[in-house]
This record gives sequence, structure tokens and C-alpha cells, in this order.
Amino acid sequence: MKINRLLVVGGVAAGPKAAARARRLDPEVEITIVERGEHISYAACGLPYFLSGSVNDSRVLLARSPEEFKKRQNIKVLTRHLVESIDPPGRTAEVRSLAEGRRFSLRYDRMVIATGAGALIPPIPGVDLEGVFTLRTYADGLALKDYIEGKSPRRAVVAGGGAVGLEAVEALAALGMKVCLVEMADRILPSLDEDLAGKVSAHLRDKGVEVHLGSGIARIDGKNGRIRSVATKKEEIAADLLLLAAGIRPETELARRAGVVIGPTGAIRVDERMETSLPGVFAAGDCVELKHLVSGAPVWAPLGSTANKTGRVAGENALGGSATFEGVLGTLILKVFDLTAARTGLGAREVKEAGLDSFPTVIFDSSHPHYYPGGEGYVLKIEAANKDGRLLGAQAVGGTGVDKRIDTLGAAIRFGADLGGLAELDLAYAPPYSPALDGIITAAYVAASKRTQGIRSVDAGRLKEMRSSGAEKVQLVDIRSPEERKEGVIPGSVSLTPRELIGSGGDLDPGLPTVVYCGQGIRSLRAAAALKKAGWAKVFDLAGGYRLWPD
Amino acid sequence: MKINRLLVVGGVAAGPKAAARARRLDPEVEITIVERGEHISYAACGLPYFLSGSVNDSRVLLARSPEEFKKRQNIKVLTRHLVESIDPPGRTAEVRSLAEGRRFSLRYDRMVIATGAGALIPPIPGVDLEGVFTLRTYADGLALKDYIEGKSPRRAVVAGGGAVGLEAVEALAALGMKVCLVEMADRILPSLDEDLAGKVSAHLRDKGVEVHLGSGIARIDGKNGRIRSVATKKEEIAADLLLLAAGIRPETELARRAGVVIGPTGAIRVDERMETSLPGVFAAGDCVELKHLVSGAPVWAPLGSTANKTGRVAGENALGGSATFEGVLGTLILKVFDLTAARTGLGAREVKEAGLDSFPTVIFDSSHPHYYPGGEGYVLKIEAANKDGRLLGAQAVGGTGVDKRIDTLGAAIRFGADLGGLAELDLAYAPPYSPALDGIITAAYVAASKRTQGIRSVDAGRLKEMRSSGAEKVQLVDIRSPEERKEGVIPGSVSLTPRELIGSGGDLDPGLPTVVYCGQGIRSLRAAAALKKAGWAKVFDLAGGYRLWPD
Repeated sequence: MKINRLLVVGGVAAGPKAAARARRLDPEVEITIVERGEHISYAACGLPYFLSGSVNDSRVLLARSPEEFKKRQNIKVLTRHLVESIDPPGRTAEVRSLAEGRRFSLRYDRMVIATGAGALIPPIPGVDLEGVFTLRTYADGLALKDYIEGKSPRRAVVAGGGAVGLEAVEALAALGMKVCLVEMADRILPSLDEDLAGKVSAHLRDKGVEVHLGSGIARIDGKNGRIRSVATKKEEIAADLLLLAAGIRPETELARRAGVVIGPTGAIRVDERMETSLPGVFAAGDCVELKHLVSGAPVWAPLGSTANKTGRVAGENALGGSATFEGVLGTLILKVFDLTAARTGLGAREVKEAGLDSFPTVIFDSSHPHYYPGGEGYVLKIEAANKDGRLLGAQAVGGTGVDKRIDTLGAAIRFGADLGGLAELDLAYAPPYSPALDGIITAAYVAASKRTQGIRSVDAGRLKEMRSSGAEKVQLVDIRSPEERKEGVIPGSVSLTPRELIGSGGDLDPGLPTVVYCGQGIRSLRAAAALKKAGWAKVFDLAGGYRLWPD
Repeated sequence: MKINRLLVVGGVAAGPKAAARARRLDPEVEITIVERGEHISYAACGLPYFLSGSVNDSRVLLARSPEEFKKRQNIKVLTRHLVESIDPPGRTAEVRSLAEGRRFSLRYDRMVIATGAGALIPPIPGVDLEGVFTLRTYADGLALKDYIEGKSPRRAVVAGGGAVGLEAVEALAALGMKVCLVEMADRILPSLDEDLAGKVSAHLRDKGVEVHLGSGIARIDGKNGRIRSVATKKEEIAADLLLLAAGIRPETELARRAGVVIGPTGAIRVDERMETSLPGVFAAGDCVELKHLVSGAPVWAPLGSTANKTGRVAGENALGGSATFEGVLGTLILKVFDLTAARTGLGAREVKEAGLDSFPTVIFDSSHPHYYPGGEGYVLKIEAANKDGRLLGAQAVGGTGVDKRIDTLGAAIRFGADLGGLAELDLAYAPPYSPALDGIITAAYVAASKRTQGIRSVDAGRLKEMRSSGAEKVQLVDIRSPEERKEGVIPGSVSLTPRELIGSGGDLDPGLPTVVYCGQGIRSLRAAAALKKAGWAKVFDLAGGYRLWPD
């Protein structure tokens, strides 16, 4: 069948990409993009930087105007138009002009749904007050910036400690506001393991951000229609600006009503060709779920980079092509003041969900050789399979070079690396770029050595779970010096010198699960190895030691 | 057999690493490191930065003193001692004290040869004059720095346009010297493809460095025993400092005389366990050759990072272990003023030597989204196999983020990536780190598209070779606008508009090899595709276009 008309629903990232790809492949096909908002083809990820002033003109975030689409690619764009319904058998869409209210039908041969994701707005009393914002669309960004410039708010509350929330915290702090982060869970950044997320929390506090964990917003109070304070279950926080960053959800309403199958993550299910359950209806971008390449499970990982890639595949295949997109690694990165936090592959919670038997390894290293100026520290955590040493995931928090190491590890995971191969990576070495022995190599050495010796490691999350599961009493041993213990201790631990522990085991029971920790996980590893040799069956070391303990 | 004594010959990088690894695995074995020089365990790669003053105290380059080796690891270190010969069957080494002249025998059970590589000193008249240096060892660095501080040279000549030469050029220029680079070949940086190396040459010139290509040093003239000028075949260059960076060669004399097999690269042949042809004699670091993981061929790739890795394997196996090191990718990186130049895998010359049928793809991109401050441009070139799209190599020159992309691509190559997988890499995206569609993904798209369409690309080196081989006349077509042609043209090209070329082909013969070029390789690719469709059998595009033409 000759494809004469392509309809693309959604004009931010995946939609325009799909349209552009289709045009590249076919100069004749009639292409229409229908976008609900006023703006299309913009870099939503750039909004926090527009907010902070790093990007000083919002217009640079707009990649291309509707007029440019028309002129340069002969793509018709309808902004402020809503596709209200589609009739896949009849290949017709019902469209409403939001400006004029006019309704009309659009016929199509193939369609790409790229409706993206929308900000979750929790049903909190007072949410309609002036000064309450979300930061998802270009219009959101303009409105927020206008408010800041017009009302000069001084105390901001950000509700939600995910990536968008933290980027907003930094942006608002950069504008001189006193910022308070309120997060309902007892930790921030659910996409990072608890221990690494703890590093980010600590950094926020160092930067003067108030961090309230386990604390949801119950009510927003105002005066004369404008926000004045925010009430959690515990306290009242004065605020003249509230940014709701409680999360986003895929916009699937249109697809769902048309009978498109929605996957277990709540996003649209597509095959490798980005085709939905309805033939001829493709979907791409933040509204679809994809396969996680490590676990094989469906995952919803909305991200601008992935939207571009999947949009391209959808655009090509909508014209009869055979492009594929196998899946993602759930890679994520964000800048939080002076820190970079990033992950790729599976984290501790996800390996468990996937039923994989794996262990964590943590190293602390520096981006550059110790003698070279400008080096910055970072912590790297990798997750490897016990069975075959396959690399399953990596997370890092620190200064410069975290992005490099996560991308390198992401490529390694993507192409099936195990610890042996990882340890041999021929990384680009010169002093301005990395230490002679990069942290990636060190992490691979340590992990391989643990695996060979049969030493099991736990991290903060796993230790807490072991202790709270109550299956068996967990013996927690601190082998740091009295001097080191002044920094703090993990509650419920007993203190022994390595000699005492290995020599007699103190009052411990060699038959019970025993977790050893030290300062950063080097001495504890040796102690665990010695106990293991001495026949202690259930001995674990705490990866990263006290230095990475999140509380 | 119980291994009681380990002898390590060489104390800079691989040697100390081997010794430290052995000690970690066996607290009892007697370990001796014999080092010819006065210093051990130092970061030779840091010398250019000590020279420039980025590193302001040479001592920070010393990782560990002989006393520390003794005290902390019970490793005996003999500095200023030369191992003159070894007797593998008798497991004895003859050692001479360079300070006292005393000779003695050392018995060993296992030995690790880590004699490294030495600077090539060309037999040029005047090479013994004061003011003539090499920069290989710690002592070299101290002597050069002393001379600079004592004599305040103002005009420096660096002989040799490899990585060490270029790092030295930058260091000397940073000290305010007028620097002239003299290179015998007609291009610098033989480890990069000619087109990318041309970018580095241009940058050197932009930075005020005189670059003399095709120009070897014939004679060094002096006055009162000190250098005054340098004579090439073409001219005389005033100089009060000459740094010889003509290359290095593996120090294999000891091994060779003992009957150890030397490989085709001139370095010591070892197996994956880092054992030489003589059982019980291991070797590691800059004196060995390794397997190139893409070509499978032996390669000599001396580098501090690899020395650490191979030293560790040699140290482990010398004690009976079974560690392996599969090989390298020939990764290299260097900083040259504001540029980073890097490579991994095979370059254009090497794919040819390896008999691989592959093609280059070049993209110009930026480290960050266009709207985010601080983004820097770079050019990325990848080499992919025609047969199966396997990624064989990558090179990049540019600003920030070149190291990240080369490491990511290196990991991809190491684990067998093809273009399809590369295009799907889930790279860490947020505006402070990369564009939504990273250059790596773009390069993979372009390369995959060329491969699918059967378009062959050439680069500067290949084009020159085609034209000079004389097998067939090569038609070279410039499809740029008259405005663009004002920047310059490639000699011997004819100018046609894309319309003329695709429409009639001008006076060209569709049967002859035809290379199309444009500004940066985008329009030429489309034109080549159109000619290909029109039946031109031997049509090529010039990857990177005029922008990457090196001359």
C-alpha cells in the first residue's frame, strides 16, 4: 500500500523526529504534526537551565518553528490542536482546535503517537494558588520564569526529590532563593541506590538546601490567592513559590481509548519496530515502554535522548521501513550543584526484582591522577552477576568524569561485558584525562576478586533489608579504629579490631549472618575473606563502608 | 614448586605493579626490584605537566620510594643497579651496581622483565651539546627543568611530532618559549589518520607554534658547548633548547640475550599470561608486545595504563596464578593546547594492513546542546566493516568530551559492537553532559545508512592513495558553492553543482572512480547516493569534506 498521509500526534521530541525521518525517506508523503501546546520541537530538558539563567533566552530551546517545518521540510504543524480520538480501522482522527473550538477529521494512512508524558499534579488543597508550578512544558517554564521575575519569590519549596525536582532545586538556589526540598519517601532519587542517593542528599544540605524526607505536602496555604506556606504532616514551611515535581506519567489516554494495548508500566506497549498493538499505529517517545536490555523486562524510561531514537524508528517504519530499537539500559544522569549523579543498567532494587543473583562493589577514586590539577573525587558502584561475572549495572556520584565512566560502563553493559573484559578495557589514558589505572578497572578488579573468593557484599539497602526481614539475627561488626568511630557508627553494630574479629570472633556466632564494615570497604573485604576461610558461612562485607552509609 | 624468590627487573610502572601484586597474593615470597635509574615507581606520563608547571613539584610524581616499598610491602628495591644478564636455566641474574661497579649474582625462582622503553636518540652531529634533551625518565625531566630554570631558553625546537613531542611543545610554549616543531614525515601524529592529524597541526599553528613537516634535523650547532641552532635539510633554526622526541623503542636487550623470543614489532613476545617464550620468565609493560583485539595482530602500544594492567597479571602469574590479559585496542589520547586528540581500535592505515574491508564516517558535532553554555565542537571519525557493520575503530579531535566519546567507543569495540547496537547506545543524557542525540549516535546512523545504500567513503589518506596509485584516473568533484570555494579547493578537482553532477555528470565518465566532496560531507553523501542509483559503479564521497582536508 502506498502511504500517502502520515499523522503524528505530539510535537515536542519524538513526534518531530518521526516526521523529519519520514520526510527524509519520502519527499512526497503528506505529513501533519498535531500538538496540543503552543510550542513544538523544543528542548524540555533545558528548562531548568533557562530557569537558572544558564540559558538566558528561552527561545534558544525552540529547535524549529511550525513555519520552519513547513518551509524546510513541507511538514504541516497544527499547534494548540488536540487529537480527541482516533478510529484506527477507519484511519481517521478527530481533531479539535483549542483556540477556536472547531472540530474536524483528519484522514491518515499511518500514525505515530508521540503524546509524551505529563506532570503529575497531586490533589492537594491549595494547588490552584498563584505561585504553584510544574516544570514540564515550555509554557510551564515561561510561566515560572515570569512569576520569578515579577514577584521575586525568596523562599521556594520543591516537592519531589527525583531528577526534575533536584534540577529545579539547583536552579532556584542559583537565583538566590532559600530552597526547601520536600520528599514523601525517606530518601531522594529513587532511580539511584539508597547509599549513592544519600551522597546527593548530603550535598544538597551542604549547599544550604533544607531537605525534608518522609514528608509529603498536605496543604498549601495562601493569602489573596497567592501561596504563603506549605504544610506537611509535621510542619509548616513558609514559601512564596512551590514547584511540584512529584513525577510524571505517560500520556496514554488517546491510545488507550483507541484500543491500543498499554503495558504493565502504564505506558504504551510497542514492539521493536515501535508499532503498537494496532497495525499501522506507531508510538514513540515518553509515552511508550521499552525493553530493559539487562533484565528483559518492560521499563518506562522517559528521556529526550530515547525519544529522539524511538521517534526516528517510528517515522521510518510508519513509511514501511524495518528499523528496530531493541531497548534501553535505564541510563540517567543529572547535575546537582557540584555533583553529577548517574546510573546505567540495573540498580540494587532492580536486580532483585529481576530475580538476578548479583553483588555490589564500591570504589572511591579520582577523575585524574593525584598529581594533576583539577581532579575530582567520585564514588562508583557496580553490580555484577554472581554466576558469570556479567556486568549488570553501574552508578556513580561525584565530580568531573562521572558522565564518562557511566557512558563507558553503559557501552560495556550494552555489549555484554563481564568483569574480566571490564578489567582489560583499553581506556584513553593521559594525565589530563584519567589516572593510569582508572576507577572502572579498579572496580572490575575488586569485583572479580570478591567473586573468585566467594565473598558476598551488601550495600546499605540490602543490609537494612536483611536486618528488617527478621529471618535471622544479623551480626554487624565495625572494624574501624576508635578514632574513626568518632565520625559516627551504624546503629546496632559491635566494635572489634580486625585481629579480634579474625582471631576469636569476639562474642559473635559464626553460624549467623555477619556483615563487616570499615571506613570505605577495603579492610572489611579482607576481614570477610579471612572469616570465609575460617569457615564462617554467611559473611558479608558492606560495600563502600561507613563512608557510603546514607543516614 | 614453592616460589620463594621473585626478581623484577625494572622499577617504573609494570615492575612495581607486578611486585605489589605478588606481595598481595603471598606475604612470604622474597621480592626484589632492580632498577637501573635512581628513581622508581613514578608517573613518567606526568613529566610534561611538571615541565609546564601544571605540576609544581616533581616529587608528587613519585608514587613510592624504595624505603616505602621495604617498609610497607617488604619489597627490596635496588636502584642504580643494572641486570646485565640472566641465566634462565640456572635461575640466576648477574647484577652490577652502577654506583660502585660491584657485580653480584641474584638467584630467583620466577622473574618479571619490566625494562620498559627508552628514548631513541638519533645519531645527529651535535647531539651531545648542552641544551639537547629527551623526556622519557624522571631524571630527564629534572635535567630539562633545571636547564630551563638555569638558562632561561627562549627558542625551543622539538624534534618529533608524536604524542610526547606534542605534549612537550605545549609545555614549552606554556613557559613562554617560542617553539618550533620539526617532524621528518609530511604529517604529525602517525597514530591518527592523516585528516584528523591535520586538525592538530592547524591548531598548533594557531597557537603560534612553527610546524616544519618533511624536515628532519641534520645537524645541531653550538657555541661554547651549548646549542645555538638546529639545521634541517632546508634551513637553520635558532634554538637554545632542543627536545628530541623522535620516538621510543622497547628495551629488550636483556631478554634478547637470554634467548627470549622477540616479536615482529621488536618488543618481547608474551602469551596471555604475560609469560615469555622462556618458562618462568614473565614480562610486562612497555617492553612487551600485545595482541590487538580488533586485528588480532601483535602490536606494540606502550602506555602507563597498560603497563599497570600487564604488570598486575605478570605478578600474579609469576606466583603460579592464572590471570590473563587478552590484548589492547591501541587507545591513545593527548592534550594539545585546547584540543584533545584521541583514538581507539584501528585507524585507516591499520584496517588496510589488517586486510579489512571498511569505510570511514565523519561527523562534526558539539559536546553539549547548542543552547547550553560551554559546549565545544569536535570531529569524530569511525571506521566500520563493510561486511557486517562491526565497529573497528574511532578517532576524535576537539574540545571537552572527546575523552568520553573515545572511551565509550572503545568499550563498544572491545565488546563487539556493530553499527546497529552503537546507534541504540543508552548514553547518559542531560544538557550539562551531552546533546539529546549524541555524536556517537549520529555517526552510527550515518555509517549504517551508507552501508545500507552501498556508498563507499574515502578519507584524505585513501583519496591520496587512490590518486597516486595510478591504477585508474580518479575524478574528483567539488559540489560546493562558489562562495565556499573561496576557502580553498582540493587540487585536481572539478567544480559542479549537485544538480549538474546528478543531472548530466558534466564531462565526467560514469565508469571511472569518482569522488564527490562538499563542505563537511553531508551533501556529498546525498550526491553519491544519487549517482549510485543512476548506475555510477565506483562513486565515493569524501568523509568530512573540505573541512577535514588536511593540507
